[in-house]
Amino acid sequence: MSEPRTITDPADPRLADYTGLTDVELRRRREPAEGLFIAEGEKVIRRALDAGYRMRSMLLTPKWLSVMSDVIADAEAPVHVVEPALAEAVTGYHVHRGALASMERKPLPEAAELLAGARRVVVLEGLVDHTNVGALYRSAAALGMDAVLLSPDCADPLYRRAVKVSMGAVFSVPYARLDPWPDSLEVVRAAGFAVLALTPAPDAVPLNEVPVDLLRRCALMLGSEGEGLSAEALAAADLKVRIPMAHDIDSLNIAAAAAISFYAVSHHR
Amino acid sequence: MSEPRTITDPADPRLADYTGLTDVELRRRREPAEGLFIAEGEKVIRRALDAGYRMRSMLLTPKWLSVMSDVIADAEAPVHVVEPALAEAVTGYHVHRGALASMERKPLPEAAELLAGARRVVVLEGLVDHTNVGALYRSAAALGMDAVLLSPDCADPLYRRAVKVSMGAVFSVPYARLDPWPDSLEVVRAAGFAVLALTPAPDAVPLNEVPVDLLRRCALMLGSEGEGLSAEALAAADLKVRIPMAHDIDSLNIAAAAAISFYAVSHHR
Repeated sequence: MSEPRTITDPADPRLADYTGLTDVELRRRREPAEGLFIAEGEKVIRRALDAGYRMRSMLLTPKWLSVMSDVIADAEAPVHVVEPALAEAVTGYHVHRGALASMERKPLPEAAELLAGARRVVVLEGLVDHTNVGALYRSAAALGMDAVLLSPDCADPLYRRAVKVSMGAVFSVPYARLDPWPDSLEVVRAAGFAVLALTPAPDAVPLNEVPVDLLRRCALMLGSEGEGLSAEALAAADLKVRIPMAHDIDSLNIAAAAAISFYAVSHHR
Repeated sequence: MSEPRTITDPADPRLADYTGLTDVELRRRREPAEGLFIAEGEKVIRRALDAGYRMRSMLLTPKWLSVMSDVIADAEAPVHVVEPALAEAVTGYHVHRGALASMERKPLPEAAELLAGARRVVVLEGLVDHTNVGALYRSAAALGMDAVLLSPDCADPLYRRAVKVSMGAVFSVPYARLDPWPDSLEVVRAAGFAVLALTPAPDAVPLNEVPVDLLRRCALMLGSEGEGLSAEALAAADLKVRIPMAHDIDSLNIAAAAAISFYAVSHHR
């Protein structure tokens, strides 16, 4: 049980984890270096705790004290109570969900460890948009992808925006980094996975014509919306696959393409 | 050829079509009533023209004059040139794409007319979010859906945000309203379509197990993200179908669910 304490000074050092939440660049560097991430809103905080993340502290506006009373009762970390205006002054934005928690990161597993028990995994190259990363995790969780493997330059799945868009799926789908890139795709192949590269290239095999035996244990690799997969990543794949498209006007956005391909590899007839 | 004219007074009546573009409620009422919609950015303006929409006027910041010179040369409508600050004062936001056009709506076709030449159509009930509507049209275009049929309470596909997110697909996928709702689903069925209702209900048929003969000519019906399809709409369907999902944490978002179902009905093995 943690005793909630009211804080009235925006410069109070106990609020340091929450300063400047809107500064993407700052947080992107700071959070991993300091081993923390921010969970926003009651549901996301509960999911982070359920997933075994340790709380460093919690920041609540007064009206959230009763809603979070069970969380507070179980907490060892300090619980800071601040008025909405102070929360806004510290974080840089209007905290309309009224509840923030600073959480401790866990060491990431090795890719080989995740692959051992997996059947279908996602490999992401160069995805830098937090909204897209969050959307991908949400679809991956719903469609039964077992793990996500990230190239070194992919955005942080625990960044606030990604966590929020994923509805907390970044906590439930395990992930690891593949470094060096793309050489460590060999780890994926060595674990018995067929590496399928999603690309709009006309010579790629339509997703609904991929031989079923390749889908039994497969790694579906997607690139960023703008550039797609790099030539090196494409060269390292076992097969190039594409989503058959109708008009030539515009491709699907990355979140739609990901959802379709997760469905196709998991629920092919 | 239209001669571009510089305007310096934000109250100039020639700018009336562009005032208060950020006021969603106002525009939602005004644009259909006045028979106009706003196209934003070079690409979207060109696509609207290609799709046969008539231009009422165009609003450009000076640096866009050369980029749009061919459009100006072909235009009969007036072209207004304004400084970025004036554009912002009139529209209410920073017009970073520097080019807006007020376009004339076309009369909507009847549903029966669209159905006559179609094989696979989308039916939307109660989708009020413009981002979701835009995302759906983009996926519908890419995945070869032939038309979209909207319940009377669906958001306007020609609203600026929907147009933008769709990348102009709202111009290329024909659509009509189904009114009265849901009674006029009979028009869909009378045209020989199987009406498939997408729902997370456990007794629905998994999408990958829908009898193939039902997919030859089908209307895929989706509801809003929050509520899903109404009981009346579900009762009017021929079959309830669901996307098989893994974890029970959260369903897919509507854009992902739509993309998957469009793919599944178009590209089943």
